[in-house]
This record gives sequence, C-alpha cells and structure tokens, in this order.
Amino acid sequence: MALKKLKRSARLVEMTQYLLSRPHTLISLTAFADRYQSAKSSISEDLAIIKEVFEEEGFGELNTLAGAAGGVRYTPKMHTDTALSIMKNICRQLEQPERVLPGGYLYMTDMLGQPDLLADVGRMFATSFASRNIDVIMTVETKGIPLAYAVASCLNLPVVIVRRDNKVTEGSAVSINYVSGSNKRIQTMSLARRALKEQSRVLIIDDFMKAGGTIQGMMDLLYEFKATVAGVGVFVESGEVELEERLLEDYVSLAKLTAVDMKTKQATVVLGNYFK
Amino acid sequence: MALKKLKRSARLVEMTQYLLSRPHTLISLTAFADRYQSAKSSISEDLAIIKEVFEEEGFGELNTLAGAAGGVRYTPKMHTDTALSIMKNICRQLEQPERVLPGGYLYMTDMLGQPDLLADVGRMFATSFASRNIDVIMTVETKGIPLAYAVASCLNLPVVIVRRDNKVTEGSAVSINYVSGSNKRIQTMSLARRALKEQSRVLIIDDFMKAGGTIQGMMDLLYEFKATVAGVGVFVESGEVELEERLLEDYVSLAKLTAVDMKTKQATVVLGNYFK
Repeated sequence: MALKKLKRSARLVEMTQYLLSRPHTLISLTAFADRYQSAKSSISEDLAIIKEVFEEEGFGELNTLAGAAGGVRYTPKMHTDTALSIMKNICRQLEQPERVLPGGYLYMTDMLGQPDLLADVGRMFATSFASRNIDVIMTVETKGIPLAYAVASCLNLPVVIVRRDNKVTEGSAVSINYVSGSNKRIQTMSLARRALKEQSRVLIIDDFMKAGGTIQGMMDLLYEFKATVAGVGVFVESGEVELEERLLEDYVSLAKLTAVDMKTKQATVVLGNYFK
Repeated sequence: MALKKLKRSARLVEMTQYLLSRPHTLISLTAFADRYQSAKSSISEDLAIIKEVFEEEGFGELNTLAGAAGGVRYTPKMHTDTALSIMKNICRQLEQPERVLPGGYLYMTDMLGQPDLLADVGRMFATSFASRNIDVIMTVETKGIPLAYAVASCLNLPVVIVRRDNKVTEGSAVSINYVSGSNKRIQTMSLARRALKEQSRVLIIDDFMKAGGTIQGMMDLLYEFKATVAGVGVFVESGEVELEERLLEDYVSLAKLTAVDMKTKQATVVLGNYFK
C-alpha cells in the first residue's frame, strides 16, 4: 500500500515502525520504494541509517540481501551485556523468599505474567536461535505458553501448544505417556493431528526443566509426527538433579536454580548456560 | 542511560523504537533529553514528527502531558478501517470448511498460534480498552492465553491465568465451581491467592464465548478476590445461543459465529459488536 509522500524524517519514523513490526520477514526494496513513493537510492540511504542505529544500540540486525529476490530483513537480537544485566536482575527476583514451592519448584508465575520481562526473555532466546532453521515453536500448557509466544513474536513463527490431557476436542490427536524424570509419575500429553505438519523443525520452549522428562515427552511426541527438534530453550533449569538423571544435554537455559533450602524457603539462582 | 550523541535522523529512529517498545508508559522529556544529550526543544520537535506519523498512519497516539510530572506516552491503537479489513479476512478464514468441531465450537487454534494475527487482534482490544482503568488482564487456560498476552503487550499490563483444575501448586488457591452455560456441565476453576491483589480492576480476555458460563465463572472468582471487572473481550462469540441463555451483556466481540451446519461442517462468521 502506498502512503502519501512523506518527508525523510517522517519516512524514517514510519520505516522504523514498519520493520520493527515485521521481524524475520524479507521486505523488498521495491515494496519500500512503492510504499514511500521514493527512489530506491533514497530508501537505501534510510535503511543505512536505521541499520546503524539498530546495530549500534544492540536491538537487532538489519541484513540486506542483494539481487532480484533481495531486500531487507530485521532480526531482533539482544547484546550479551544487556541480557546479562537483565538476567542478573531476574535471578535476584527469583531468589526472593517464599518463592520455593513443594517439590523444589520455584514460583515464578507472577514474573512470567509481565509483558516487558517476557519481551526481554523472548528476545534473548530469539538471539540464540536466530540462525537455526525452525518452522514452529512448541510448548506444553500452561506456564510455558507466554514465553513461547514471546519467542515466536521475535522469530515470526507459529506456536503449537501440547495439552496435558487427552480431552482435546480438536479432531484426532496423538497422545503419549511420559515419565516425569524427577518424581517418576506417569503422565499424558497430546497434540491434535492437524496442529503440526509432518517433517516440521521444532523449537521447544518451556519455563522450567528439572530432569527434562516433560521435554523428553515433547520430543517423543515430535517423533510421532516425524518432526525434528531444532532446539530447546528453558527459562530456568534446576541444578538439583544428579547428572545421570538428566535426560537431555543440548539445551539453552537462562537461569539455573542451584540450591533450595526448604526450611528457610530460600533459593539460590545463578545464570544459565546461555551465558557460557 | 545516556547514548552517544546522535544525529537527528538517527535520534528519530532510536526514539521511535524506544517509544514503540514502551506502550502506555509515561516518559519524561527530561529522560529523553538526558538519553539523547539534547535540548528539550529538539526533543519536542522530534516528538512532534513522530506523533504526526503515528497518528497519520493510525498505529497509535502520542500524548504529551505538560507540567513537572509531564512527559509523553505512546498508546497503541488501530484505525477502525484497518481493523475492519483485517477482521473481514479473519472471518473468511474462520469459515473455511472442517473448522466446525463437535458441540458447535470452531477450530481456531492454528490461527491463534500466529504471532502477527495475535498482534493485530491484541491491538484491536487495546484500542477498545485503552481508556479504561485496568490493573491486570485475566484469562483461563488454555486457548485464551496467547490472546491475553497480545492485549497485555499493548496495554503494558500483567496477565493472570486461571487454571481449570485445583491442582495448583502455587500455595493457597481459591477454587469455584461453575456451570458452563451451553452444555450445563459443572466445572472447576482456581486461582492462587498470591496471583491477584484484592481490589484489582480486571480485564477478562477469552478466545470463545458461547452462553458466557466460563466468563461468569471468572467473574465469580473475581468476587472472591474483592476484585472488579473492568471489561470483557472475546475473539469470537457464538450467536447460536438463545438470548435468555446469554449470561452477560457487556462485552466486546471481534467476530460472531452465527450459524453452523453440522452436515456440511460449514460455519458462518460475521463481524462482532466491536464494529457496531
């Protein structure tokens, strides 16, 4: 859609908004030239200014692809320094007293309910997984859902939600039983057949991982869909797991719960392997 | 945090990004002047340019509050024309064959898994409820969660998720039984005590409403927290409900499912009361 002719200053504002709201989307120079009724050379100059600011301030990359099929693509990213400072602050919040729940879990529902925290955390995972070949993001209800969407918004990918029961009213579904690694209980998870295409490359996102039984369950489910795992990201992993109990090796964690004192209800939370 | 001194064109790009990522947040002119090491008069001129583009292109308002406690606030909005064209397209998608589920529900999980659709729909609700006095957004698991977050991102508000069971492992919880209005089954929903402050003003968001039993259940739950309803927004309402069965009057719907042919599995979906 062509806009009325804008001055350069106004065009820069509009173009910035346009790019920010279309992450991981290739936009052709012709589309921009038509939109702003401007020469491609002017558009290129504008993009150079935007690119410099985005990359200098560390909120993403602007990559130009040359050629007929070329254009520009905005990739949201976060500087490691910024991520570090945000996660240190989050770790301190996670160590607040009274967050320790029965079973050594951490109460963090309130924090995962804050859109600004989610946006930051989503951008961190988007930075980690930006260059992987991913078709869809998967999570299991309930607490991982907001996080999965925060990542999905940055990566411009759809989300698929695995249900914890088999009461899915969405046509035929695949159910599997899995053993939660830490407490050895048998549980069920299911996904509607039509929710996921075969051969999909899937990024698994969850809020908390102990031994990894739930994530292993999602991987088993993916196998039923002939889909493959393109990555695993967890907000907090528990370090309170014996190494031989750990069900998976290849994952990204932002924080790690290393110790829980059930008497004082005090947790110790350090940075995750994202920062290694 | 002060940035290195930027040229005006670069400053406009940075400022646009800064405002867009902080909706419904008052930012003082002094903060901007410090950040960009520029005179308030230059900042005011930049803001005037940004305001004109935002309001001209219809993606939000930029309101300036004068005085010592003053500043500028970005309010994401969507033009009714834009919303209309997007929702007409969504209605057509909802009418695709094979979306009709047993019980007269519509399969729309795939659509509510698309971040761009969610961002659009979130912005529509944010436009509706921008001027209401709201502390928190509430939804019930599972399918309403992405939608609630999309609205929350625009309104800069936290989200609280009501669980459909009472297996909440988050300390003491309040559970209520409610009767799903359409199929008369008694169900349970619960919310952890610490998830919601007393006296909160709550915007309820859900994906689908038939007679309104689930939403009435959330309202009953709010009563237990001495909280009040600041608004109700549903993505799709079902028109297949007798008027006397309808449990609530005051809500905003974006689309309305008016007829379902179970034989041909064909649904008719029209615009909701948002456009009235």
